[in-house]
Amino acid sequence: MRETNIQTKVLPGFMELLPEEQLEFDRIRAVVAQTYEQFGFTALDTPAIERIRTLFAKAGGETEKQIYNVENKKGIADASEGGGSELALRFDLTVPLARYVAEHFDDLSFPFRRCHIAKVYRGERPQKGRFREFYQCDIDVIGRDKLSIWYDAEIPSIIYQLFKKLDFGKFTIRINNRKLLNGLIRSLDAGVDTAEVLRIIDKAEKISVDTLIELLHAQGLSSELTEKLLAFIGIKGRVDEVLTQLRSLGIEDPLFVLGISELQSVTDAMLQLAVDPAYFVIDLSIARGLDYYTGTVYETKLDDHPGIGSVCSGGRYDNLASHYIQETLPGVGISIGLTRLFYQLRAVGLITCTRKTIADAVVVPMDNANVPTALRTAQSLRTRGLRVDVLLEEMPVKKKFQYVSKKDAAFTVVIGSEEEQTGLLTVQFRRGEEIAKEKVAADALADYLLAQQPG
Amino acid sequence: MRETNIQTKVLPGFMELLPEEQLEFDRIRAVVAQTYEQFGFTALDTPAIERIRTLFAKAGGETEKQIYNVENKKGIADASEGGGSELALRFDLTVPLARYVAEHFDDLSFPFRRCHIAKVYRGERPQKGRFREFYQCDIDVIGRDKLSIWYDAEIPSIIYQLFKKLDFGKFTIRINNRKLLNGLIRSLDAGVDTAEVLRIIDKAEKISVDTLIELLHAQGLSSELTEKLLAFIGIKGRVDEVLTQLRSLGIEDPLFVLGISELQSVTDAMLQLAVDPAYFVIDLSIARGLDYYTGTVYETKLDDHPGIGSVCSGGRYDNLASHYIQETLPGVGISIGLTRLFYQLRAVGLITCTRKTIADAVVVPMDNANVPTALRTAQSLRTRGLRVDVLLEEMPVKKKFQYVSKKDAAFTVVIGSEEEQTGLLTVQFRRGEEIAKEKVAADALADYLLAQQPG
Repeated sequence: MRETNIQTKVLPGFMELLPEEQLEFDRIRAVVAQTYEQFGFTALDTPAIERIRTLFAKAGGETEKQIYNVENKKGIADASEGGGSELALRFDLTVPLARYVAEHFDDLSFPFRRCHIAKVYRGERPQKGRFREFYQCDIDVIGRDKLSIWYDAEIPSIIYQLFKKLDFGKFTIRINNRKLLNGLIRSLDAGVDTAEVLRIIDKAEKISVDTLIELLHAQGLSSELTEKLLAFIGIKGRVDEVLTQLRSLGIEDPLFVLGISELQSVTDAMLQLAVDPAYFVIDLSIARGLDYYTGTVYETKLDDHPGIGSVCSGGRYDNLASHYIQETLPGVGISIGLTRLFYQLRAVGLITCTRKTIADAVVVPMDNANVPTALRTAQSLRTRGLRVDVLLEEMPVKKKFQYVSKKDAAFTVVIGSEEEQTGLLTVQFRRGEEIAKEKVAADALADYLLAQQPG
Repeated sequence: MRETNIQTKVLPGFMELLPEEQLEFDRIRAVVAQTYEQFGFTALDTPAIERIRTLFAKAGGETEKQIYNVENKKGIADASEGGGSELALRFDLTVPLARYVAEHFDDLSFPFRRCHIAKVYRGERPQKGRFREFYQCDIDVIGRDKLSIWYDAEIPSIIYQLFKKLDFGKFTIRINNRKLLNGLIRSLDAGVDTAEVLRIIDKAEKISVDTLIELLHAQGLSSELTEKLLAFIGIKGRVDEVLTQLRSLGIEDPLFVLGISELQSVTDAMLQLAVDPAYFVIDLSIARGLDYYTGTVYETKLDDHPGIGSVCSGGRYDNLASHYIQETLPGVGISIGLTRLFYQLRAVGLITCTRKTIADAVVVPMDNANVPTALRTAQSLRTRGLRVDVLLEEMPVKKKFQYVSKKDAAFTVVIGSEEEQTGLLTVQFRRGEEIAKEKVAADALADYLLAQQPG
């Protein structure tokens, strides 16, 4: 019965959710948005389509291959685009932010805080947990000419508040500062390519120590210096202990010294922001592959699910928009790949989806004659802030209760001839394993439901 | 200073807002979403990219010219798309809904209510108030095999609740039923193309009576029948008066008779749903150009701004997804083109944008030494549900207050050495035209701000 010759399956690499899944996805997304807002990050929205020249002013390589080109082939759109610009879908929210800040520079006040939660597009090879269309949830603070190190402390505090609220179990925010590694490598005076060495160290956790040593040697690092480097990234312990150990190394490179002082400021301020010290560590091996981070960097992992990888990463950069504007715009920010995270959390069982409706209550008139009362009842509940579905279709009673049972709203309000006569409506709700029934006077119904509602 | 050779201007036909505008746009969008949810419409999300064959199973013509094709040119994406499907951005949310319902048919329970607020893409010629990327805010109820007429009453009740909340002034929901016009034309036995005649009537308001008569004659309608038709669409008055007049016409065509009875049911039920009768009329001239409406149709206009046109339109259709699935899926729904509406409301001055931050309060440490207290203060306010920005950048006092003044948050909390010593923080807020100042004890600050906050 179902087949026609038109394909309705969602495209490979695209996530499409059933209502019960979407409700849970949207709940998580709302927690992210609310937490960002709590810290004063105001939402922005930019077009999903950008000029290719703008997109690739900075990026390139792998990203360029993954781009989705966009074209209005038959229409009249392109000619007026201004010189027939080639267009594409954005592949992240950072490039659009850079363009936005450059374009609207005179209308913004700095430090500029923005959050952006939206879809981005990458033509990746479809595989488990990799998506071609996915939500990124970004926040950044952008300074003009300078940006205080205090902002670097605010970001992990937001991560902390967010993942506490999301309640996916114990997590650890791992903090580092790239000035340390940069300063250390410079102080070793080894004449190596610092960026390459950082990229290798970034992989440290995923490869064996032998491979790590091999790779560092291949960069021209002597055995002695390799040993020093490994000893450095191996420093672990409580935040104050790590900072003491770092100072005791006696490295006088000014970048290294600044790195220690920044880490100190960041971790101190996090305590002022009420971050539980059990939830963050200094991890000197974190480099974040991307070249543009220049100071503090962050990764966050769920303690019980290390396989998921970092659920929230970011850091400090020196200049956001050098390709678009001749202003120095340092910034610090983080990104959450929500689509992938949702997929992974479901896979490990941290998310369950049951409720199929946003409604708090479903009102069920037993008969067509009860519809007017049902409509009035529903509307009176809505004026009290409740979300209410009314089952208005005529169907056998058994089917009505199947509908209600599938929807799994907190309350069902039944209105039949008895209820009409007595003015007492039947309310059904889950009480443990059972379905409880109560008779409630029509004019007391809203108060009753509001009192019963969890939260 | 600002120029580089990279274009940062937003593409023509795309809307990009400044933070203060975005805040207002998002506020309106949230009111739309909340109202939809109040009626139990659960949000869905579908990919912005669809197969072209799927998109054009139904549509065609003008829409096809406006399509934005999407292609991953260099990468590996297309080969695995399944037969190298050609892809495009969606041009509305109805086609994706049809595909979704067909694809997930067995997992949905009917009547199926969904809301979808998302961007769609049309390569229209850029002109004032026309956008190539714009938000649609759709709700639909989809039945399986049948769908009660009561649902047709719920939809305009949602429009009513929504535009009351949005508070853009008095509005009128205009309701009609296409069965009336279809039945009337059939009863006239004029042998004309009903769809063409409906399309002409749909334009009645925008053209002169003479032109209207001319166009109808051109369709082969005699002067006598044209007169009857004009008399019919001219029937106006209170809902009960219009229904009485319609009955008094004595037209026995069963479609016409059914149309009257449906209009009666819809308007009766709207009263049960507490819709103020001053806010809706029966307007027999509304046909809604689209061919697929088959029963109730809606348009909504702002009384003081008729030039904006219909701000919310929709209606009843017999079968949503006949191109994708061999099931009969009648539905009823509405759509709001939010991007265009926002643009128009701004143009007529119904929207003003001042506040530049989502934050309720900005905490300002006067000196770097006050930062720890500022961080603690901000965090304690956040735990009470307030949204708080802290100005952490070191800058001259004058610049700090420029920042605060531009942001225009409800409250500014100043923390300097005096405040640190006394434990009394300085709170500034707008009182009429003036900026008022109060000293508030640190531990009473949250209560103080919450009590002052409007709403």
